[in-house]
Amino acid sequence: MTIQERAQHAKKSSILLAAADTDLKNRGLRAVVDALREKIDTILAANAQDIELARSENLATPLLKRLVFDRSKIDEAIAGIESLISLPDPVGATLCATELDKDLELYKVSCPIGVIGVIFESRPDALVQISCLCLKSGNSVLLKGGSEALHTNRILADVIATATRDSGIPAGWIQLLESRADVREMLALDQMIDLIIPRGSNEFVQYIMNNSSIPVLGHADGICHVYVDDEADIDMAVDVTVDSKTQYVAVCNATETLLVHNRIAERFLPPLAAVLAHHAVKLRGCSRTADIIQVQPATKEDWKTEYLDAILSIKIVDSLEEAVDHINTYGSGHTDAIITGNTLHADNFMSMVDSGNVFWNCSTRFSDGFRYGLGAEVGISTNKIHARGPVGLEGLLIYKWKLIGRGQTVAQYSTKKFTHRHINHDCPL
Amino acid sequence: MTIQERAQHAKKSSILLAAADTDLKNRGLRAVVDALREKIDTILAANAQDIELARSENLATPLLKRLVFDRSKIDEAIAGIESLISLPDPVGATLCATELDKDLELYKVSCPIGVIGVIFESRPDALVQISCLCLKSGNSVLLKGGSEALHTNRILADVIATATRDSGIPAGWIQLLESRADVREMLALDQMIDLIIPRGSNEFVQYIMNNSSIPVLGHADGICHVYVDDEADIDMAVDVTVDSKTQYVAVCNATETLLVHNRIAERFLPPLAAVLAHHAVKLRGCSRTADIIQVQPATKEDWKTEYLDAILSIKIVDSLEEAVDHINTYGSGHTDAIITGNTLHADNFMSMVDSGNVFWNCSTRFSDGFRYGLGAEVGISTNKIHARGPVGLEGLLIYKWKLIGRGQTVAQYSTKKFTHRHINHDCPL
Repeated sequence: MTIQERAQHAKKSSILLAAADTDLKNRGLRAVVDALREKIDTILAANAQDIELARSENLATPLLKRLVFDRSKIDEAIAGIESLISLPDPVGATLCATELDKDLELYKVSCPIGVIGVIFESRPDALVQISCLCLKSGNSVLLKGGSEALHTNRILADVIATATRDSGIPAGWIQLLESRADVREMLALDQMIDLIIPRGSNEFVQYIMNNSSIPVLGHADGICHVYVDDEADIDMAVDVTVDSKTQYVAVCNATETLLVHNRIAERFLPPLAAVLAHHAVKLRGCSRTADIIQVQPATKEDWKTEYLDAILSIKIVDSLEEAVDHINTYGSGHTDAIITGNTLHADNFMSMVDSGNVFWNCSTRFSDGFRYGLGAEVGISTNKIHARGPVGLEGLLIYKWKLIGRGQTVAQYSTKKFTHRHINHDCPL
Repeated sequence: MTIQERAQHAKKSSILLAAADTDLKNRGLRAVVDALREKIDTILAANAQDIELARSENLATPLLKRLVFDRSKIDEAIAGIESLISLPDPVGATLCATELDKDLELYKVSCPIGVIGVIFESRPDALVQISCLCLKSGNSVLLKGGSEALHTNRILADVIATATRDSGIPAGWIQLLESRADVREMLALDQMIDLIIPRGSNEFVQYIMNNSSIPVLGHADGICHVYVDDEADIDMAVDVTVDSKTQYVAVCNATETLLVHNRIAERFLPPLAAVLAHHAVKLRGCSRTADIIQVQPATKEDWKTEYLDAILSIKIVDSLEEAVDHINTYGSGHTDAIITGNTLHADNFMSMVDSGNVFWNCSTRFSDGFRYGLGAEVGISTNKIHARGPVGLEGLLIYKWKLIGRGQTVAQYSTKKFTHRHINHDCPL
């Protein structure tokens, strides 16, 4: 099948999937669990093949690690699906209900988006997680994983497609793409695909945005900040900054730039520098920072850089407003924290920093779907419409307006008035 | 100022506007009401100038009518603003709240999107309505109205900018664009503008989507359908079809295509044709329709056409599934209705028709923000993400995640567990 035919198939099946009841979808998910257990040897063999190939091509160790899909990873994937089964069906929820007139009732009801294209990195567990999130939310999905995981992804997609089809889920809802050319074709199919979720580098997400008129739920760089206010507790500020920078440096919610109020800088920076030295963090700072602690000079380029490494840039600011302005200018709208004992300062910071996640007195590393209690996440959005921050099931839903009448015409309401009364029950359909 | 400078100014002011409290925003809206009353003569003079110019250029009568902004239109605009003032502030609502651990509380809080670009038709009342919706929802706005209304728009934008600035709203939140070149420049400013809302023809919306990487809340054609099921009440089906087609033909929620189940066609089509003849509606139909009533032959082109005129295309189908398939293939995802006495048929239709508005036993013409009780609307979205159907205040909002702690680090939670308990109070900030 061509990519267009696959997308057509996915679209056709998404219509049926939108009408599928909760039991059917959960039966499909249960069948995936059983099939993963049953086919475990085939899956492990395919993964071994990918890993051998990757080794022979001298893939870097961190990439090799992500590629592994062993028994413990399979158990984790199964646990994830089981928690998904236990969640309430997000489709069909009445979000709002209004009586327009007697026997003319309007309901805003949650429904799947339709067909979603997801491009993700080399972790094969992502394929299982994303496709099961799509199934639970009633969406068809076109998946493109990392090419290093090709054999594992093929067997996983096949296992999921077969198990769900056999349990009565409309065939065609899950489609595996295998090449960059496939992705390019997908980007042109705006009549069939409703949303693209690209996971990867900033450049990659930009490339997708510039090459498709399909809406993109994107994830830009994570240029996260900690701002240490003049009314911060010094010990807390050191702890949170160190955690935000060092707890795991290679992730998007790690802090890249520290902003410090000038009135606290001399008391705060020396103890901070001492602890960061233990963690071998390299410091870059503005000239005023350099007057207090030893740093490499920071340039404007540093404020815009996602290091993903044990490097921290530091800038001294004269006010909360300057900190907010710096973040809104150089940040990426991901996650930014203020450390302060002053509630008003915290309130101003949280209202004015234009990011998806704004924190008071805690580490930027908390910005994550699992920690937020959302269950699995399909990504962390730095978009400003539809969904923001960690995106779980809810980001895969939209709504439709259902209006139920008894033959009313608009002509009648040229004289008659609407009642617009709130309705207290859910949509009957 | 260049368009880029204007957008920068709007962005700067959007940050302050996001932190503005309800009283300030309502004071600003109240000041607009007072200023519209005070400057009424200047506004009427500017509008007279636009109308004279339009007449001298032989503008068509319907366009001339839309251009008029007289005392009664100004009164309507003022009534609209007053109802907006009385609405609760949509910003700062706690949408969900979770305790991650003792003293580590997560809140999902509604907030403005930021800077919105709106391109609208020649009605000057649209300028007042859209800008006031943006102010109430805390967004900055770049407005481009129809060029025929240039003088009226200039004075209105000036009145609104001055009145709100004098009442303490951050200056620069409202910017008027005047030419197509301005719009082209705006489309490139994806660093400053968060959402474009184009109102106009399908081609125009497509042009915007293809020429900007800014998210677009678009409105495609309104190719709406009525499907008359085999279990429909004939009288009701006639009434609703006639209203859907004839109550106002030049609008997007008027019906363009009628689908009729073969088992009811012979009883339903003759009485329908008799009533539609009174309304001078021209009929086009498939060959099976032509066997029952007199019609021009319909081609595939008809199924894709938004007539916006007294023309109805008719197709006989053999099943509900065929009707759903026709709608999902040729429709525009706007509004589609089923007429049936069978609840299961209605349920299937409403789940499987992939449109923003799906109706049971009532006219497609109900699809409208005012009739839905949303207050004013900025447009009707045929998007499938963010907002669907009539878009009021809510579509101009997004949310941010606010996390409030006491110095917690992620490192602590390598051993400690999250509580993920539901919180019953609103966000304190």
